[in-house]
Amino acid sequence: MQPVLAFDVYGTIIDTQGVTVELERRLSDASKAGEFAKRWREKQLEYSFRHGLMGAYVPFTECTREALVFTDRALQTGLSDNDHDHLMAVYAELPAFPDVVPALDQLRDAGIRCVAFSNGTEEAVSQLLTRAGVRSHMDVVISVDEVKRFKPDPAVYAYLRTWLETRPENTWLISSNPFDVIGAAHAGLRSAWVRRHSDAPFDPWGIEPDMTVPELETLAERMMR
Amino acid sequence: MQPVLAFDVYGTIIDTQGVTVELERRLSDASKAGEFAKRWREKQLEYSFRHGLMGAYVPFTECTREALVFTDRALQTGLSDNDHDHLMAVYAELPAFPDVVPALDQLRDAGIRCVAFSNGTEEAVSQLLTRAGVRSHMDVVISVDEVKRFKPDPAVYAYLRTWLETRPENTWLISSNPFDVIGAAHAGLRSAWVRRHSDAPFDPWGIEPDMTVPELETLAERMMR
Repeated sequence: MQPVLAFDVYGTIIDTQGVTVELERRLSDASKAGEFAKRWREKQLEYSFRHGLMGAYVPFTECTREALVFTDRALQTGLSDNDHDHLMAVYAELPAFPDVVPALDQLRDAGIRCVAFSNGTEEAVSQLLTRAGVRSHMDVVISVDEVKRFKPDPAVYAYLRTWLETRPENTWLISSNPFDVIGAAHAGLRSAWVRRHSDAPFDPWGIEPDMTVPELETLAERMMR
Repeated sequence: MQPVLAFDVYGTIIDTQGVTVELERRLSDASKAGEFAKRWREKQLEYSFRHGLMGAYVPFTECTREALVFTDRALQTGLSDNDHDHLMAVYAELPAFPDVVPALDQLRDAGIRCVAFSNGTEEAVSQLLTRAGVRSHMDVVISVDEVKRFKPDPAVYAYLRTWLETRPENTWLISSNPFDVIGAAHAGLRSAWVRRHSDAPFDPWGIEPDMTVPELETLAERMMR
């Protein structure tokens, strides 16, 4: 039986570091752009974990905006409300990694079902993927927003399986984010880690992915063997 | 009626940056010690959030050790297993901030009950506070380990209140960690943020502490007014 592949979006399909160029324009000290982008992303994830743990779910876009404001304060970069709005708009139009569309097309040509599975809302993720030219290459967008929990809560992976009507051993979570890979594996799914940077470390929790690939075209090849 | 004060331990009473001196000795590049200490601490907290969110509780010491190994890998500092063991031992003997004992003594002299409330296990925290010369200045150590959840899960603050048999409006959580302050406030407790660094930002979630102080002696003065 063919596997079903659920792709994480932010960091796996969409390059969240793509916001760096705009930060270089907006920050009075452009040399802070790289650090700003990195901390913004880390804080966004921390906020999703904490909102989830507190049972105080908010749409992921709110985590993103709160993290943007925090990073601005922490790095004392003095952005205006207008800058925040503008950066949020840029964040909604980030590019896809170049390997995404070729890999999805190979997989779908081989009859393998590919869906998006994200912390973002269905609307936000659909728009993001459409603008990045990826939406039409995937079957459907599945969002944690339906269960009002965030990855890596086991409830969201259970929801994914219910949605797909698949067996755990046949359902793959594909992500560049170790927390997502570990969450899916812990919930009984199969998992592939997209190690987009060759020196990216994996969390030493004793839970390993079933497959590690440097990018999605390698994933496609290995899935079709 | 007198308030009851529940003090967070790591970062509020105990100086987690105290491990930096030992890192300077152990790392081949001593200039990385500050960044290592900072990232170790951040990862330790992230791991507690994620273990909590996954419903996969482990003792906090395990989060600390996993975060140490991760940071070593991420910064490519090449520590040995022996170095990890040694650093974990140092982490169990970190010093208290100098304002802690004078503030606790003032509060207790005024008849205000002071307890420790930590993500650490009762045993680990009691030993840590004893070595730091603080344990005998507090009534009791209350640990999240009893409920197998981590801050800021509302269940741990509810457990604290049940333990203390106090009303929410009379129960204060005192912490230098914004996530803990927000978690306590969200759970209906009163909260004080110990802003140990004057440029430390607070999370822009629309939940504010009832009191902000630069250190614990100021807290003691304000509580006794």
